[in-house]
Amino acid sequence: MNNFIFNTPTKVYFGKDSEKNLGKLIKEYGFKKVLFHYGKNSIKKIGLYDFVIKELNDNEIDFIELGGVEANPKLSLVEQGVALAKKEQIDFILAVGGGSVIDSAKSIAKGYYTDESPWLFNTGERKAEKSLPVGVILTIAAAGSEMSNSCVITNDYLNDKRGFSSELNRPLFAICNPEFTYSVSKYQTACGIVDIMMHTLERVLSYDNGYNPLTDNLAFGLIKAVLETGKTAYMNPTDYDARATLMWASSLSHNGLTACGRDYIMPVHQMEHALSGIYDSISHGAGLAILWPSWAAKAASINPLPFAKLGYYSFGISKNMSIEDASKTAIQMMKNYFKEIGMPTTLTEVNVTKESLEEIANLYTFNRTRTIDDIFLLDYDSCLEILNDCYE
Amino acid sequence: MNNFIFNTPTKVYFGKDSEKNLGKLIKEYGFKKVLFHYGKNSIKKIGLYDFVIKELNDNEIDFIELGGVEANPKLSLVEQGVALAKKEQIDFILAVGGGSVIDSAKSIAKGYYTDESPWLFNTGERKAEKSLPVGVILTIAAAGSEMSNSCVITNDYLNDKRGFSSELNRPLFAICNPEFTYSVSKYQTACGIVDIMMHTLERVLSYDNGYNPLTDNLAFGLIKAVLETGKTAYMNPTDYDARATLMWASSLSHNGLTACGRDYIMPVHQMEHALSGIYDSISHGAGLAILWPSWAAKAASINPLPFAKLGYYSFGISKNMSIEDASKTAIQMMKNYFKEIGMPTTLTEVNVTKESLEEIANLYTFNRTRTIDDIFLLDYDSCLEILNDCYE
Repeated sequence: MNNFIFNTPTKVYFGKDSEKNLGKLIKEYGFKKVLFHYGKNSIKKIGLYDFVIKELNDNEIDFIELGGVEANPKLSLVEQGVALAKKEQIDFILAVGGGSVIDSAKSIAKGYYTDESPWLFNTGERKAEKSLPVGVILTIAAAGSEMSNSCVITNDYLNDKRGFSSELNRPLFAICNPEFTYSVSKYQTACGIVDIMMHTLERVLSYDNGYNPLTDNLAFGLIKAVLETGKTAYMNPTDYDARATLMWASSLSHNGLTACGRDYIMPVHQMEHALSGIYDSISHGAGLAILWPSWAAKAASINPLPFAKLGYYSFGISKNMSIEDASKTAIQMMKNYFKEIGMPTTLTEVNVTKESLEEIANLYTFNRTRTIDDIFLLDYDSCLEILNDCYE
Repeated sequence: MNNFIFNTPTKVYFGKDSEKNLGKLIKEYGFKKVLFHYGKNSIKKIGLYDFVIKELNDNEIDFIELGGVEANPKLSLVEQGVALAKKEQIDFILAVGGGSVIDSAKSIAKGYYTDESPWLFNTGERKAEKSLPVGVILTIAAAGSEMSNSCVITNDYLNDKRGFSSELNRPLFAICNPEFTYSVSKYQTACGIVDIMMHTLERVLSYDNGYNPLTDNLAFGLIKAVLETGKTAYMNPTDYDARATLMWASSLSHNGLTACGRDYIMPVHQMEHALSGIYDSISHGAGLAILWPSWAAKAASINPLPFAKLGYYSFGISKNMSIEDASKTAIQMMKNYFKEIGMPTTLTEVNVTKESLEEIANLYTFNRTRTIDDIFLLDYDSCLEILNDCYE
């Protein structure tokens, strides 16, 4: 087991009516002026927008609003947010929405303390030293940004999408009421399910094969629970326990728990950022569902053991099956699962032509300047090979 | 899934050489005067005492010492600590040791802010409102106090042992180097293994049977990893990965993770506090190993399902076995496991005579004023029944 630091300071208020803690919490922390940050109409449709406004007013908390966050949150809106936050001297950002809203808030929170572009944190040219506190009311189980140290932004000037990690990115608190996810569409529910699983899969299916039964059991046990409840939530969107399991799994899958003592790189996420960075219409989860099976097939041909464990522990494949067969079966079962919840598993389905694959591989490799050495070396050529395998 | 609050602010530095963060950490937090709190000779034997002294001196950190914490940490030493802390105006307590030292530090940290006895927090007569920060260097995998909200103290004036929970009890940071546990005796290693498993078992084997596959999988997966690595560490005390797994499991088993969304009471812990409150020579883990099988047999006769899940998930019992049979088999397998790691499983082995059982039942029920309504009503009579069942 490798050394690690475990840091999950985000206080989670989970369950029905948990949003009723909002005013009390903000007052207890003593914040003076709040930036209420959100997306488009979804929080209005479920009444959450009105609730937040009333809660802030009832508690006499001064605030300003900035809505309009899109999927693959854009740098241009972040810049607006930073300017607004500075002008209004806000001291706390309330992100109400899913991963895109939370990541946008995290970026504004860092940008507040610099005169440069917050994009420089995403490129790695600058290291974040300070952040405004961010609180969350979560409305979709997917990205895990509500507890994670990650912040992914799309630079809409450069058509580039990049994430950066910093302990300063972890929210102060997260209010998670599964009922707020009842109205998430079947498609977006499925995208969330893939994203949740992938955060753990990309941690546990790593080049690092060190003996680590505790982290293995937690990781594969989480995936097993998501497989089970994901299908339920997909079929019956108002099943509370299924929605609750997905919501809690989203947080645990990306807060660090499922990789304690194990090194990992998340190569498929990096490829997917390139894919949806160019094709804005491709949801992150859908992109992962397309790329993962091809990546996994290549990785398992080199090191089948972690994929076999996925089969034994998460899918319940008999341990009598050989490691090699179990690894192939697990990958096929995962691909089948993606299909069953309506996810695309080929680039054909999302209208990505073979002509554009080089552009994606270029973006992934930052114009052939980056490679990722994981189970296999993921460079320009092997990225292109995997992309080409995503057709049937 | 029930509502819950998840709060694990303790920052964990885990692994080899992690203690080298100590001086830097204390300086980053800006503490001015440290109370270095520890037990008896064990930290001196492993060189940790000398390391801490040198580290504090090298970093020019002002400190005073208070050693002498015993197993089942005593109120009288806590009172000494409070007086010393007040006199020396300390602003941080460094607990170097296991659960007893950490709990003693937690109690001093609360006592610092009151003129009354800190015992009143344990009896529930007072609610803790403020605490000095506590940092930990952990030397035994067992109590989980390094991340927990729990503080168990023995009142050596009244011969009474009680715990109390408060979010203020969670340490600021925990430094966990598994190598420090290499020298823990086989017996104490086994006591720790029982304690770790019991923290999760008492959460998951609860009256609350709500559908909660994520928490189930995490809980039973943790126990499975402890069963596997516990025996390894017991046989080979310097097996790093086994020691590391136990150490990390000790933290996760008692920080709240394995009960998210599930209500629980921990009745066996309450009985054990009475047992070792009277018989100071009985280690907490040994007391749990004695009491649990009898409690579990009675509980499983009323509700076998959670015990069957323990069998299916943690022990790998075939799902073809009926719930009732699997529950009985799991309890027997756990009892056998306790024996294999040298734990007593009867009161005979620890020289508790039947004549003293009423005294234990009296202490457990606070003289017949308390009952615990869990899977069954644990009152004076049923406590006595379970104690009587702990003979063979």
